[in-house]
Formats: sequence, C-alpha cells, structure tokens
Amino acid sequence: MSRASTRFDTKKVNSELVTLTYGALVAQMIKDLDNTEDVSKQLERLGYNMGIRLIEDFLAKTGTGRCLDLKDTADKIQSAFRMYLGVQPNVANWSAAGDEFSFILDSNPLTDLVELPDELKNLKYCNIICGVIRGALEMVQLDVQSWIVQDQLKGDQNTEVRVKFIRRLEDAMPAGED
Amino acid sequence: MSRASTRFDTKKVNSELVTLTYGALVAQMIKDLDNTEDVSKQLERLGYNMGIRLIEDFLAKTGTGRCLDLKDTADKIQSAFRMYLGVQPNVANWSAAGDEFSFILDSNPLTDLVELPDELKNLKYCNIICGVIRGALEMVQLDVQSWIVQDQLKGDQNTEVRVKFIRRLEDAMPAGED
Repeated sequence: MSRASTRFDTKKVNSELVTLTYGALVAQMIKDLDNTEDVSKQLERLGYNMGIRLIEDFLAKTGTGRCLDLKDTADKIQSAFRMYLGVQPNVANWSAAGDEFSFILDSNPLTDLVELPDELKNLKYCNIICGVIRGALEMVQLDVQSWIVQDQLKGDQNTEVRVKFIRRLEDAMPAGED
Repeated sequence: MSRASTRFDTKKVNSELVTLTYGALVAQMIKDLDNTEDVSKQLERLGYNMGIRLIEDFLAKTGTGRCLDLKDTADKIQSAFRMYLGVQPNVANWSAAGDEFSFILDSNPLTDLVELPDELKNLKYCNIICGVIRGALEMVQLDVQSWIVQDQLKGDQNTEVRVKFIRRLEDAMPAGED
C-alpha cells in the first residue's frame, strides 16, 4: 500500500471508526502473535511507520518551522493530538533536566468503549501513540523515546504518554529540504 | 475488547487516521492469511461485526424509526455514510424489481493514498463497507447481500457498493425493543 498523492486531505470521520478499526487491528495482532509483549512492540513499530508519514502532512498543513526547543516540540505535538485525534492533552511532568515531559490525556478515542480482558492486562494498547511520536520526531532530526506511564485501560485516571529526548540527529537532511 | 459504555461519543478525528489504521489492518491480514480471497472474506466479516455495533449508535444519534421501504433504508444508509465516513454517496442503479440498489462514492477515505500492488489486484479492499451494511441491517431485521461492483483502486472512476434485499427477518426482536 503506497501513497497515491503527496498530500493528505482534511476530511473528518467519526472517532468510533478509528476506535473500531484500531480495536480490530489489535485483535488481529493478538490472534497472530499470541504474545502480549510482541503485540505491544508491533503496535509501537506500526505507530512509527504512521508517524513518519503523518509528520509530512502536519508540516504541510500547519506550515510550522523548526522547533526552537523541547518545550516548543511538546507544544507542536500537543496541537498534532488535537488535529489528528481530536483531543488536547496537557503537557506536564517536566523532568528537572528539561529533557523529559508527559502528555496527559483525560480522554482517548483509541480506548473509547475498550475493555482489556484479564489475560491482556499487560498489553500496551496505546503504544501506537508512542510510535507515532517517535517516528514523527525522527523525521525532524529528534531521537526520542516514548512510553506509556499511566493507562486508563489499566484503571488509571488519565493516560500519560512520556517522551524523553535522547539526541539531535545531524547526519540526515531535514524533511522537506532534500 | 468489549464496550465500556452504551453510547459512542461524537468526536471527530482526521480521516487519515482511519486510512492508515485500516491500511495497517489490511496489511496485517495479508501477512497472516496469505490468500487474497480469505482477506476479502475476513474484511467483510470484520465489517459485519462493526455494523452490528454502529447501528445502535446510529439509531441513538439520529432517533430514526423503522424504515418504511427499501428506498427509505437506502436514504438512511446514505446519511450514515455522511455521519461516519464524512462522504455522501449517491443512491443509484435501482433494479427493475426495486430490490437492489447501489451507493456510488466518488471519494472514499478508506482508499485515500492507497495503491494496490499487482499481486493484490483481486483484493476487495473495501469489503469492510459491505460487511458494515450487512451487519447493521441484520440488526434491524433486514437480510441483505452487499458487494463491490466498481472500485477506484482497480481503476474504476467511482466506487460502487451494491446492496440486494433478500428477506425480512421476523424471528428476533427489533433493536432497542428487547
């Protein structure tokens, strides 16, 4: 499946379509991989592949330039959440060194209506979000780690997605400047 | 994955999320099933399972009553396309007997940016739509068949989804009246 045009359109669809389609995808992976940890990893990888595509659309639509600093990066990802998932997380829990922060989501279309059965309690259902962030940022020369800290599916009050800056990538051309 | 609440919310998300998530789902199935025909069948079945959930949401949101006739059914499905996929197909190509009709979509979020490689030219990529229609209608006591007649992914100008009325189901309680 490769892309037929260079720009995404701006159509909106109902969030339950994403909820159900994503649920079907996770269920399919569980059936195939038969190992919760592998599914979590695969979801992250899938997100990564989505992220490296979505960033291009994000840059085209917002006309945004280079991030000034990690705070600016966080703000831009926050607006991407709003653009794509229709929710606006808070940016919070900055580390003292200023190299880590969290997105706190009090609602999450991916998990609406979802309940994890007991045997899947270890599944990182929302790992796709971490992957999208990692993939998108890699395309703008930022190497980050991202992981789920709190999870509403596990009974936590919010979903908290942690992002840790690792290093700036210097050896590739920035997206859009090749 | 079972539902946690009895109502879907009305949040909107960007259509490319559905496009990419659906593409990932299809790709995953292709990897696992290794047979285009099985993937097409599985997509229809998946759609069926979504349809029997979406109909409840549709009825709750629209407050719509029983369909008067098949023309009314077609109009209601047309508005469901608009609600969920953000596109409004034309209803066309009625059979002389009045028991078959088509939805003609000139754009389709599921296939935006998608190109089928040659070895998948037989894949009924949009079969999920046929399944959704069949599942949703079964919940309101209508047994139908649905299939793809034209497909933009195969080079056709539009995507045409055919629906054929088979029979009215009498032995179950209508949705919402149990």
